[in-house]
Amino acid sequence: MNTLVAGGAGFIGSHLADALLEKGHRVVCVDNFLLGTKDNIAHLDGNADFVFYEQDICDLRGLDKIFEREKIDYVFHLAANSDIQAGGRDPFVDLNNTYLTTFNLLECMRLHDVKKLFFSSTSAVYGEQRGKLSEVSGPLFPVSYYGATKLGSEALISASCALRDMLVLIFRFPNVVGPRLTHGVIYDFVNKLKRDPARLEILGDGKQTKPYIYVSDLVAGIMEFMDAPKGLTMYNIGVDTRTNVTRIADIVCETMELQNVRYDYTGGRGGWPGDVPEFEYDLAKVHDAGWKPVYSSDEAVRKTVEAVCGQ
Amino acid sequence: MNTLVAGGAGFIGSHLADALLEKGHRVVCVDNFLLGTKDNIAHLDGNADFVFYEQDICDLRGLDKIFEREKIDYVFHLAANSDIQAGGRDPFVDLNNTYLTTFNLLECMRLHDVKKLFFSSTSAVYGEQRGKLSEVSGPLFPVSYYGATKLGSEALISASCALRDMLVLIFRFPNVVGPRLTHGVIYDFVNKLKRDPARLEILGDGKQTKPYIYVSDLVAGIMEFMDAPKGLTMYNIGVDTRTNVTRIADIVCETMELQNVRYDYTGGRGGWPGDVPEFEYDLAKVHDAGWKPVYSSDEAVRKTVEAVCGQ
Repeated sequence: MNTLVAGGAGFIGSHLADALLEKGHRVVCVDNFLLGTKDNIAHLDGNADFVFYEQDICDLRGLDKIFEREKIDYVFHLAANSDIQAGGRDPFVDLNNTYLTTFNLLECMRLHDVKKLFFSSTSAVYGEQRGKLSEVSGPLFPVSYYGATKLGSEALISASCALRDMLVLIFRFPNVVGPRLTHGVIYDFVNKLKRDPARLEILGDGKQTKPYIYVSDLVAGIMEFMDAPKGLTMYNIGVDTRTNVTRIADIVCETMELQNVRYDYTGGRGGWPGDVPEFEYDLAKVHDAGWKPVYSSDEAVRKTVEAVCGQ
Repeated sequence: MNTLVAGGAGFIGSHLADALLEKGHRVVCVDNFLLGTKDNIAHLDGNADFVFYEQDICDLRGLDKIFEREKIDYVFHLAANSDIQAGGRDPFVDLNNTYLTTFNLLECMRLHDVKKLFFSSTSAVYGEQRGKLSEVSGPLFPVSYYGATKLGSEALISASCALRDMLVLIFRFPNVVGPRLTHGVIYDFVNKLKRDPARLEILGDGKQTKPYIYVSDLVAGIMEFMDAPKGLTMYNIGVDTRTNVTRIADIVCETMELQNVRYDYTGGRGGWPGDVPEFEYDLAKVHDAGWKPVYSSDEAVRKTVEAVCGQ
């Protein structure tokens, strides 16, 4: 099958490209290297089933040319701003890189009659709800532009799916970690401690508690469900366990073999404006469909620290 | 108070402008006359508390100049595409006129430190859910770009509200009818019968059943709740009764004193792609808050037919 991976040089996109190639699919990778890197796809150089376009998906005409040239069967949309804080400082970051990438991909799919789509959504669409979050939990009041433009993207996709009789798979990701990570708490902690092994600044009170999924588990889930029935299928995907931020700091220090590191908390519940300090998924739907992750949240964090330290 | 009514020359916006003026507020009306008309605000010419700007809200720089000149306290955002079928033909209609108007208004509010906002949302955000729709009903899978970009707008507003400590009131409108209506089933029926009083083409099977609220009831609700507490307050607003499309045809024929009109149904459940043929609100929240409409759905339809016939 001819697949297009939007954001395919990014952290998650590049792992997905690897998995699609391994299954024998052709991969048309599109990335603007805003967050993606050449390193993430360097190992695919010379692979006859892999083609790369350096292209900003906000540029509809440029994207349209790629759809014109390649006969795409399935679009995997992972092109987005993933730095919540950047969007907090400048709303245009999420408008352009998260919402308009979705709009433009849907527009090209409409113009070129492509009807299969995977979309990477997020727990951030739920905002700050209490209790375990299930796929039908409402109301959806995101507290960041990141969550807002992901929810807006889901909505555009839902309308397209209904109007064009598509096959759509949406995963609402929790925190995703693993090799090739480019930002986030683990990445920050490792880099801060490389600069100063004696102390670690921790945003918030350290009690922020979230599920962390290992990227290979997430990608396995996408591969497992990509041939969903027609219509829109949505899953919360994640792990039943969670890790709090102070525990992450401990794991980073253990892995880096640092002792007596002083933790300096900046204080407050959330790490930054727009942060949802605590959430938990109800995973019954995806479990019932037969999917389980290999790694727990703590294991995912530990494996990621090892990977980031070695990067 | 200095209010800005975005879409203030439109059907609902112009009625809201009237009500705000009546309460002693100053009204800065912004409209691009895409759906709004000069006729809708002609009676406000010479009113010292009313100022009008012909301005497309998609043009951020032009909008910013208005915020710069006028010291706005409260924004009423009713600038949107309201023609669902137009958005079905061209997704850019809703992207620009519904989503980007919201983004740009929020951006100007951020730059000029305006913290009070009313937003006109819609039942279309719910998509095709079964049962009575309450404010927490999920999942939200709209089936039109209209519903999708309204949900996307809600999400942007929710994030802004959380990040900027705003007062936000959101109403999810059902079908709104009354004088100055510019499209929709009543408007269509009256105009078709003016052209040919012997037969009436009815889109769908005529069994589409929705609540119709009279515009004065809706505007009274906005006025009643506009001083909500800080944070985001959202209500489904509407009427407990509903009217089906064949009944609307009957009311139109009765009011126009036409007999033996032949109804030609185009068939199918929905009137057009993206139509939600049937829905019903759970109105407990807005009733508990003390609001009730004056007119039933049938009464709203009948009064509107009279108004449209006289237009």
